[in-house]
Amino acid sequence: MYDAREPFEHEVEVRYGETDQMGVVYHANYLLYFEEGRTRLMAQVGLSYAEVERRGFALAVRKVALRYRSPARYGETLVVRTWVEKLGGASVTFSYEIVRKADRERVAEGSTELACINIRSPERAVCMLPAELRASLESPRL
Amino acid sequence: MYDAREPFEHEVEVRYGETDQMGVVYHANYLLYFEEGRTRLMAQVGLSYAEVERRGFALAVRKVALRYRSPARYGETLVVRTWVEKLGGASVTFSYEIVRKADRERVAEGSTELACINIRSPERAVCMLPAELRASLESPRL
Amino acid sequence: MYDAREPFEHEVEVRYGETDQMGVVYHANYLLYFEEGRTRLMAQVGLSYAEVERRGFALAVRKVALRYRSPARYGETLVVRTWVEKLGGASVTFSYEIVRKADRERVAEGSTELACINIRSPERAVCMLPAELRASLESPRL
Amino acid sequence: MYDAREPFEHEVEVRYGETDQMGVVYHANYLLYFEEGRTRLMAQVGLSYAEVERRGFALAVRKVALRYRSPARYGETLVVRTWVEKLGGASVTFSYEIVRKADRERVAEGSTELACINIRSPERAVCMLPAELRASLESPRL
Repeated sequence: MYDAREPFEHEVEVRYGETDQMGVVYHANYLLYFEEGRTRLMAQVGLSYAEVERRGFALAVRKVALRYRSPARYGETLVVRTWVEKLGGASVTFSYEIVRKADRERVAEGSTELACINIRSPERAVCMLPAELRASLESPRL
Repeated sequence: MYDAREPFEHEVEVRYGETDQMGVVYHANYLLYFEEGRTRLMAQVGLSYAEVERRGFALAVRKVALRYRSPARYGETLVVRTWVEKLGGASVTFSYEIVRKADRERVAEGSTELACINIRSPERAVCMLPAELRASLESPRL
Repeated sequence: MYDAREPFEHEVEVRYGETDQMGVVYHANYLLYFEEGRTRLMAQVGLSYAEVERRGFALAVRKVALRYRSPARYGETLVVRTWVEKLGGASVTFSYEIVRKADRERVAEGSTELACINIRSPERAVCMLPAELRASLESPRL
Repeated sequence: MYDAREPFEHEVEVRYGETDQMGVVYHANYLLYFEEGRTRLMAQVGLSYAEVERRGFALAVRKVALRYRSPARYGETLVVRTWVEKLGGASVTFSYEIVRKADRERVAEGSTELACINIRSPERAVCMLPAELRASLESPRL
């Protein structure tokens, strides 16, 4: 079970196509690891993001912060640690820390702020987080 | 003007993020260059692909063939040559040749077969190419 | 243990960033799933591709064939089945079949032919597969 | 000629593969547009990044900040405006603003801090920016 007091962890194996000619993971690809982190956290807490969209809502990335600590390489397994940093009325901020599995060295860290969008509104307007989504992300100890 | 007797040419500058740790363009990225080739060819012949989708149709890739001749590198400009290889009732095949601009050496070549899809049908069924799309892609000399 | 009589299977969860505006996995991304398939197969048979490069060799993709059967979507788990199709003197061809885990429907299939390259030679010349790599990929029953 | 008092501008046509199922450019791909912005700015001011690497140096992304203002879509042309925000002893920060060409609406903005690395040092240590690179990026009016 996912314990909201601890970051949610999942493992990623670096793909060859995710490296660049510097021989390390290309910096933009960490955003895909982050995205997979929040996807899996949400599935774990009970309301998958795919289900959120089926219900007519989307979480659109509005802000990104990323800091690189140590390069990751092809052949390495990374551990992505994801948690809910802040739950606003119409937005949610996830934070992430990525460590190399072998030595637990910190590779990167960052956060993404996502705005809740009503997909079915004409202008795809920002809207309040639906109650069930909020409940699944909320926890007294987060 | 686009002359259907000659491939349509456009230039691509290799992005750093498109390379891999072998120091060359990652093989999957050629499919993005191909896609850009047919996008621009279609815009040139009068019916852009964005417009095709607005009208309720899509061209879904059904088959890909790709052959790599010589590696491309960051900092190089490539010339993508695109043409309509075959126009079926419900499909179209584009062929491509990519050459390095500096020395015209052949980098890769290939083809993609695309099926016409009715986006608004319940099952996104395959359908005949709409007449205007067909007309724009057709030419006695192709 | 990996049994060479059966394709090697591994699972992939479709990432949001791998979809396109048609709502399905963008066609080029299957090549990343294929790449992950052969990476894991090689790790399984005893000589990882990362180790192959450390020894001064590379397997460069020379040819790709891909056929799409049914679209894959975000939220789905795919099973990538990979096997050695053909072992040449200086090349190896892997074949792949991707099925949706939930219903085992076939999503895509294809092959990639890879040439062995001596990274440390001045021109990165094609070379014979090193003996240990050949042995790890070879099997009387393949 | 590039005038250091004004951001450097280049145009990007959104590729289909850069969209996601929300129908807009996937958020990570803006980092590729930023990267192309600084690549072209550097080529313009006289020392291309490809040449920097040939001389044994690299600029490794250390920090990213990104803010999304309005979604970009396939079929749109974007204008990427890039400038040198800060020139440190061993690092350089580029800032970016992306606007839609058609209506000049702001799409995204951000910055990337890059550390200078000596590729040929055993540990790829951080080092001072080489004088010629510094000179090419420097300007009294920046």
